[in-house]
Amino acid sequence: MKRRYFIKSLAALLGTLTLGTSESRASDREYNWKMVTSWPKNFPGLGVGAENLANLINSLSNNRLKIKVYGANELIPPLEVFDFVAQGGAEIGHSGAYYWKGKSPACQFFSSVPFGLTSQEMNSWLYYGGGIELWEKLYNNFNLVPRPAGNTGVQMGGWFNKEINSMDDLKGLKMRIPGLGGEVLSKVGGVPITLAGAEIFTALQTGAIDATEWVGPYNDRAFGLHKVAKYYYYPGWHEPGPSIECIINKDSYLQLPDDLKKIVDTACKAVNIDMLSDYSMKNMLALKFLKDSGIEIKEFPSEVLDVLRETSSSVLKELSLHDDISLEIYNSYISFKNKISPWTKISNLSYLKTR
Amino acid sequence: MKRRYFIKSLAALLGTLTLGTSESRASDREYNWKMVTSWPKNFPGLGVGAENLANLINSLSNNRLKIKVYGANELIPPLEVFDFVAQGGAEIGHSGAYYWKGKSPACQFFSSVPFGLTSQEMNSWLYYGGGIELWEKLYNNFNLVPRPAGNTGVQMGGWFNKEINSMDDLKGLKMRIPGLGGEVLSKVGGVPITLAGAEIFTALQTGAIDATEWVGPYNDRAFGLHKVAKYYYYPGWHEPGPSIECIINKDSYLQLPDDLKKIVDTACKAVNIDMLSDYSMKNMLALKFLKDSGIEIKEFPSEVLDVLRETSSSVLKELSLHDDISLEIYNSYISFKNKISPWTKISNLSYLKTR
Repeated sequence: MKRRYFIKSLAALLGTLTLGTSESRASDREYNWKMVTSWPKNFPGLGVGAENLANLINSLSNNRLKIKVYGANELIPPLEVFDFVAQGGAEIGHSGAYYWKGKSPACQFFSSVPFGLTSQEMNSWLYYGGGIELWEKLYNNFNLVPRPAGNTGVQMGGWFNKEINSMDDLKGLKMRIPGLGGEVLSKVGGVPITLAGAEIFTALQTGAIDATEWVGPYNDRAFGLHKVAKYYYYPGWHEPGPSIECIINKDSYLQLPDDLKKIVDTACKAVNIDMLSDYSMKNMLALKFLKDSGIEIKEFPSEVLDVLRETSSSVLKELSLHDDISLEIYNSYISFKNKISPWTKISNLSYLKTR
Repeated sequence: MKRRYFIKSLAALLGTLTLGTSESRASDREYNWKMVTSWPKNFPGLGVGAENLANLINSLSNNRLKIKVYGANELIPPLEVFDFVAQGGAEIGHSGAYYWKGKSPACQFFSSVPFGLTSQEMNSWLYYGGGIELWEKLYNNFNLVPRPAGNTGVQMGGWFNKEINSMDDLKGLKMRIPGLGGEVLSKVGGVPITLAGAEIFTALQTGAIDATEWVGPYNDRAFGLHKVAKYYYYPGWHEPGPSIECIINKDSYLQLPDDLKKIVDTACKAVNIDMLSDYSMKNMLALKFLKDSGIEIKEFPSEVLDVLRETSSSVLKELSLHDDISLEIYNSYISFKNKISPWTKISNLSYLKTR
């Protein structure tokens, strides 16, 4: 055998093998993504959800899509997640849609609105009621693909250093309450104040604010709010089932092979149910702790809730007039809410009243 | 170059390449699995969930794990799913744990028990409260790995041809109601009857039974129950948040590489939230249809619900005495229920009462 022939055979063989290998590995290309989040690294509930999402995608894809998580302020400030992912600075983000009301007021429907959908209803609207399609339409303008990727469950009405017995007690009330809840409070004479999480404790302690909402027993306890507030009011009314979002840079998403796209979508779904399950358990334990610590739990008078409900309704109506897409999303959301409420009433509500 | 040397080189080369290939493809081995289910093929809600689960696993794994679904009676009768998968006749199954109370009465805690956990609470117990670990312990005796893979939400109290105004009206009442609900009915003087879904319509029409429960508006409407029953009672009390199960033959599960195991687990989680979202939407539409058709919706008197609640509690207590594992599961479930109820009360219940 001639050396020339051997080399030719070897080249042919290697050629075949290389071709074979590159074909079988078309879907084996590795992607390394950065995830930016609006939460401190491993923040209870929310930050853990981001970490779980990244880990899940890594394992489902056998590390073909590898995601490294950056907590708030590690790469960018917490409220720059939207722009940073839209521009491709990171491929993926984990945050809350109500932070982006400056982009479009309609974003808020994809987290939670006052007297809106519960988590079960929200998932039904998003997955089966056309919600995700509208969300995609809205975020498409920003080069982003949105997915629900977590839920906190009903958030509490907040911590108060003043008892609320009538609408008069809300007049002039300085309360840390962002977003639509804040707008509603302002319309009924209160003074909504926006403060970052880390500033709340001191503001409540020094009397700079009279009241604050945060999340629920689990996160509230971690902030020590029970040490500086007299009352813990319920029920929550302004954020009944906040959906947490995963946003993906559209170009990055479209570059993925189909199975990796499906892996990202499915991991988001799994984290959606997982985070609510986690929160439910942790809230249950923290509530017991707070009660044992002597925290006094009260109810808003129904007169107050009636006014808050009506005001919320007109705030949402106003919001819908902002532009065409806001109206389209408002109509879909409100019509779904009106249709699902009778079902929720004779299923979940009737059962819980009975149990 | 000598021929001998060439062959040796080639063999060495091929050896290396083969080794390299087999290593890189260790996880590329294909698995073909059969899924047996307790539902007719594509049965609304439940059968669609089984189909979605199989499709999702196929796409997430890029067809490395390929699952073909067999509806009830295609390979085996609906209630042989457990044994068939345990023995390896099929690798995976989709069913409901309460069907297996003959194996152990404790199985019923993993679907739904009267006055038990809601779907949100159930998921919290399963994923974060030690529920899945106990379920694995129970099913391990049968060579099965269980995963939650669907939820119907609160099921309705049923269809009645006789008004229920007091406990006396339950005496002698012939009602199609299987499982623990049936046991409770029997203890208060009723006559629980077990009928397959397909037989219910005629039995109710001919007066062979006075009442029946089935699932909820969506599935009930499909059965035409509104055409032969006078009243639709609520709230449901006997199946407040039925979890649907995926069971996997343990040997088959353990043979999977880690990423495919994770794919099966995660697909189950995704189908869990997906099925409840689907049911919520479809129930909402079907309820409207039923109301528009003039179906009269009533409530059980609270006196009746009080007795059913107390009786349910003692039926569960009795069940727990069957064996050690039943007691262990009962204790975990009931203690979780007692701890989470105050949280559900001031979050979901308070909010829904307010909205």
